[in-house]
Amino acid sequence: MQHGDASSATSGIEYFFKPRSIAIVGASEDRRKPGGRPFAALIEGDYSGKVFPINPRYEELAGRRCYTTVLGVPDDIDMAIVSVPAVAVLEVLEQCARKGVKAAVVFSAGFGEVGAEGEAEQEKIRKLSRESGMRVLGPNCFGIMNVRNAVMATFASELEMKSTSPRTLSLVAQSGAFGARMFEDATKAGVGCTSFTSVGNEADTEFSDFVDYLLDDPDTKIIGGYLEGAKDGAKLKRVAERALRVQKPLLITKVGRTRAGSRAASSHTGSLAGADEIYDAFFRQMGIVRIEHPDEMTAFAILHRDGRDYSGGRVAILSGSGGHGVMLADKCETIGLSVPEIGGHTRAKLERSLPAFGSGKNPIDLTAAANGKPEMPSGCLRALAEDEDNIDVILTMAFFQWEHSKELAQEFVDIYRSTNKPIVVMAHDRPDSDEAAARFALLQSAGIPILYDQFQAAEAIAKLSWYQRKAKRGRVVDGGPQAPDPAARAEVRERLRAGEPLSEFGCKQLLKSYGIPVTREGLATSAEMAVELSRNLAYPVALKVQSGQILHKTEAGVIRLNVASDQEVTRAYEEVLANARSYAPQARVEGVLVQEMVRDGVEVIIGVTKDPVFGPAIMFGLGGIFVEALRDVSFRIAPLARADAEEMIDEIRGRRVLEGMRGKPPADRDALIDTLLKVSQFVADHGDQIDELDLNPLVVLPKGAKVVDALITKTSR
Amino acid sequence: MQHGDASSATSGIEYFFKPRSIAIVGASEDRRKPGGRPFAALIEGDYSGKVFPINPRYEELAGRRCYTTVLGVPDDIDMAIVSVPAVAVLEVLEQCARKGVKAAVVFSAGFGEVGAEGEAEQEKIRKLSRESGMRVLGPNCFGIMNVRNAVMATFASELEMKSTSPRTLSLVAQSGAFGARMFEDATKAGVGCTSFTSVGNEADTEFSDFVDYLLDDPDTKIIGGYLEGAKDGAKLKRVAERALRVQKPLLITKVGRTRAGSRAASSHTGSLAGADEIYDAFFRQMGIVRIEHPDEMTAFAILHRDGRDYSGGRVAILSGSGGHGVMLADKCETIGLSVPEIGGHTRAKLERSLPAFGSGKNPIDLTAAANGKPEMPSGCLRALAEDEDNIDVILTMAFFQWEHSKELAQEFVDIYRSTNKPIVVMAHDRPDSDEAAARFALLQSAGIPILYDQFQAAEAIAKLSWYQRKAKRGRVVDGGPQAPDPAARAEVRERLRAGEPLSEFGCKQLLKSYGIPVTREGLATSAEMAVELSRNLAYPVALKVQSGQILHKTEAGVIRLNVASDQEVTRAYEEVLANARSYAPQARVEGVLVQEMVRDGVEVIIGVTKDPVFGPAIMFGLGGIFVEALRDVSFRIAPLARADAEEMIDEIRGRRVLEGMRGKPPADRDALIDTLLKVSQFVADHGDQIDELDLNPLVVLPKGAKVVDALITKTSR
Repeated sequence: MQHGDASSATSGIEYFFKPRSIAIVGASEDRRKPGGRPFAALIEGDYSGKVFPINPRYEELAGRRCYTTVLGVPDDIDMAIVSVPAVAVLEVLEQCARKGVKAAVVFSAGFGEVGAEGEAEQEKIRKLSRESGMRVLGPNCFGIMNVRNAVMATFASELEMKSTSPRTLSLVAQSGAFGARMFEDATKAGVGCTSFTSVGNEADTEFSDFVDYLLDDPDTKIIGGYLEGAKDGAKLKRVAERALRVQKPLLITKVGRTRAGSRAASSHTGSLAGADEIYDAFFRQMGIVRIEHPDEMTAFAILHRDGRDYSGGRVAILSGSGGHGVMLADKCETIGLSVPEIGGHTRAKLERSLPAFGSGKNPIDLTAAANGKPEMPSGCLRALAEDEDNIDVILTMAFFQWEHSKELAQEFVDIYRSTNKPIVVMAHDRPDSDEAAARFALLQSAGIPILYDQFQAAEAIAKLSWYQRKAKRGRVVDGGPQAPDPAARAEVRERLRAGEPLSEFGCKQLLKSYGIPVTREGLATSAEMAVELSRNLAYPVALKVQSGQILHKTEAGVIRLNVASDQEVTRAYEEVLANARSYAPQARVEGVLVQEMVRDGVEVIIGVTKDPVFGPAIMFGLGGIFVEALRDVSFRIAPLARADAEEMIDEIRGRRVLEGMRGKPPADRDALIDTLLKVSQFVADHGDQIDELDLNPLVVLPKGAKVVDALITKTSR
Repeated sequence: MQHGDASSATSGIEYFFKPRSIAIVGASEDRRKPGGRPFAALIEGDYSGKVFPINPRYEELAGRRCYTTVLGVPDDIDMAIVSVPAVAVLEVLEQCARKGVKAAVVFSAGFGEVGAEGEAEQEKIRKLSRESGMRVLGPNCFGIMNVRNAVMATFASELEMKSTSPRTLSLVAQSGAFGARMFEDATKAGVGCTSFTSVGNEADTEFSDFVDYLLDDPDTKIIGGYLEGAKDGAKLKRVAERALRVQKPLLITKVGRTRAGSRAASSHTGSLAGADEIYDAFFRQMGIVRIEHPDEMTAFAILHRDGRDYSGGRVAILSGSGGHGVMLADKCETIGLSVPEIGGHTRAKLERSLPAFGSGKNPIDLTAAANGKPEMPSGCLRALAEDEDNIDVILTMAFFQWEHSKELAQEFVDIYRSTNKPIVVMAHDRPDSDEAAARFALLQSAGIPILYDQFQAAEAIAKLSWYQRKAKRGRVVDGGPQAPDPAARAEVRERLRAGEPLSEFGCKQLLKSYGIPVTREGLATSAEMAVELSRNLAYPVALKVQSGQILHKTEAGVIRLNVASDQEVTRAYEEVLANARSYAPQARVEGVLVQEMVRDGVEVIIGVTKDPVFGPAIMFGLGGIFVEALRDVSFRIAPLARADAEEMIDEIRGRRVLEGMRGKPPADRDALIDTLLKVSQFVADHGDQIDELDLNPLVVLPKGAKVVDALITKTSR
């Protein structure tokens, strides 16, 4: 079994999916019982391995020898299903480990989810697993099911092997009930499931382990997940990156959006980084499709099955009602698709197919006049399918309630086969007659996706188009700026190690050694020195008292801006020092920073915060009021690919400010990207040494950028 | 027939809904033909009036005497249905008018929708209607249907009289196809329709006329509309205001959201006022529920039918799966509902009903452990229903797939009857067995709304809650500031009449007479005068050249800010005048405005633009970059109620800036509201005289507000 670049922690997962033999501890003939359903399903179904019922109360179950414990089984056991009361679980697992069982599925509840005592029991399971090498799924889970081998190691009655639809979807869920419902919904919507895993309390194995395994499963083309929180953010990140590389879409429902626990933080960045903001950024960064409504997943899966390229996102809409067409076009444009005007050859062809009453515009309104004239919709569809220049996806009504719809369905199929362009058919209702069903089946057997809600169709196209663009581009993290030489890096490490908090000047020195541009400035320890520095910098200048104990300089009154003459500098120097003494008498003052004034740029903020799940996250936003009043910021998990930096800039609502407004020249986007990547490099080298970092503001100039103020908080140990 | 305060233009509409006799011009025995379907439906159905087929090709139709023209009918005709080719329509309508027909429904297409020639024919219909008093519906419409009297004057096959669901909904649509689909969808979803009107090209009667009539129709509790554009914005506004007063919700689908035609405009306000932004503001102002997805309307109608009070918007969620509950809570909070923590007595009661595994938090997760224990869900539901302090709406899963669900359904009904609180039941699927159907019917007959999509349920609750709050508060426009005395008003009228464009100083003089606060300032016509004014105002001051021909003062270089001494004033005075001469040699210069500098406030913009449909609209936004980079503005149609002004302020994303940031005191909200209302008063008095108005910026201070710059564009005639 090949697991690509995944960590060795996933080894053994294959025994959950492909066990050669299964023991059911707590087996029963009553198929309503958790230990009854898998037993019945395994012996009655297509499972070809050996099945051993274990239950001290029976000699025999369903005509098979029943064992008291797994230790009595005269054969090897790959997988054990454990369905016994919580108090008995540990003993059973110890027996399993002794027996050399490779994988144990523990249904039993009453562990981590019920408090400290249960958590302690669960920790024992984890320890047993670590020591024995036996992998454990659960406890408190619905189990696992793999259709290919007919492995039914779950008690959920929603999970059925039979499905006539093509199977492409595997499900992994942190809630068994939610996952079972996803399975049921998918099956009903015509999306066949390949496997199902309910990970429960994740004592040993976790969500990411199963996703990782499925990336190599040839039956799985797409993975649907339900996630409450990743146990190991770094592992999920590795798995998500690999998923993007092997082009298997991850579709994840992540709840808790508005209940984000806010964390205490002393920086702007920290206070803006709610748990859900970070998850959302992570999903966007990794090309994970975030599912809001359960139906979105099935619609995506139906489109994804056709194997066609939606990435361009330019949609032609063929509708039988003007109002619905415009409504759908509105929707498309609201969610990032475009509905371009149609011109040239295609327009001419459309005009030949359309009656006088219709409109040649996109959306294309056939009007009721096309009823009974199958050459009208098919002529339009063919014209659109042949347009190689301006249309990427065709979204068409079914038109199958009309006369001559049988010929029309065949025409749709012929056109579909003649093109590589995706064609998505929207039907108002599921077929209500045998003829209608036959027409739908004709389309489906040709691979044409059919959806029953036009907004859902648009959403699915938008999501698949986004995903395919992400997958095409991939994630390249090594294209960033050069790291500093080892000596400089070691020097930074040393300075971050020392106990004293860093002053602004101290922070900027570190940033400078990473090539991050800062204001021209110098530290004065006398008024005369301040005057000399000011003259060298050229007036006007700014004066700021430097002390690791005075971080809120404005509040302390230790800043003077626009100081314009020698005389003023001398006066300001004394004043700010006096203010510092009265604000914080104990503070150790390094001196007064004399700094050039930076004008004519756009103030932005770049920050770093530590997310408890994903580690260092980088934030970008426009400075001042944009951040404070609008929380108009974007996040990405470090390290950044260049594309991440680009997306961070494009995601903020106020991005137009960077493009130059009120006659100002545009801000230097490359310099901004470069700074983001250098911050990322800094974090890659020293993330373990810092808790927070704020460049606030970084002024992005028409050419270049400069950090005007900076704050680095060392890790508190 | 009482039409309240509606204009007399609606008189005669009642003949469309309650005709005592109907002639069908173009009648046929072929019910697939437009003239065949209504004929068959009227003679076979419950319509109790007289029916006269008109068709020169027949002597008799369906055993009835058939007439050559309406003129041959020996009886009065209230309504004529006209289903003849476009070329014959006008002659038929002339005959109808001569016959004294009260209302004509014209199905025929080929008029305004096909270009100038058709538009000219349509104009003739309009003229005939105006001259004869005969009301016309259409042309190019699907007709009208009124269930109460079994009036079937439509050819749309989707429209069926039969429905077992309670009838509360009337539909009015500018697209017949869209309207018919709305009707079909509503019927399928269990919402009975009272009437249907397709208004077609609106040659005579229009959308608003029918809505207006239906406000007095006792069978209509709620009105659904499809609108492409209001023919008469003022009329729609009157009707919408009356709808809010009589508390009949208007639910309107308005397409064209992203295709907003932008209009050329010289002011900020004008450039930000897209057609759709104005419609959206109008809907919010009038309490019209804007429908994005067709299903939203039916879900709203189902909830509205229960007659209960959703306005508080605090939702308790009772769910059988933790994941679904949290997902739904997320959704609720995203769309403006709250899902409060549950405490006190209710919490104690819940804890008595819930097993150890469940969580007492909201959403309340029963877990699968409640299966077979109907006392658990019912105990929780009762506890929530009894909570009078913290919960307004209960959203619960059906739990009817469980054992003992029959008893549970009865329990639900008993609890529902014991409370006034709305209880909305979410079912995963439509009932799939007779028993399940019986349980659903039991709930429905008790009036409990059942919805099949939990997100849809949340959306409908949010919309109904919003609507009910709007309806409770009503719209009171007379609570604003005092209008100026007649003499002052006449003086303003006079100054707005004169041909010359107004300078900033001139504009502010007009605003001042409406009590709108402006900067302290004076007009200097000499350097000496400027110095004297400056001393009186106290330094620093601003100097601005005043000329109706120089509107872009910054660009012209005729502004000096922060002028701090006599000497500087003298120099600046000469400089700005010199710049004005070189920028616009022909400009008539009134003088130089000497103005106090205003600090420490929040810059906002208040503007007025003329919408082609609704007339003067008032805009509010934060100044500068917020308007330009984010288009973060809100609109309302003039005149403003105080509540409108409040909503305008609360709607912008950057509203937190007004609450005081970075240690600043909050801006004076009352002064801002007062200024908005005074601008509204100004527009009420002089809207006919101005095209645009910008207060940009208005600086809102910790106490009071001041207009720093202003522009009024007189109507170009």
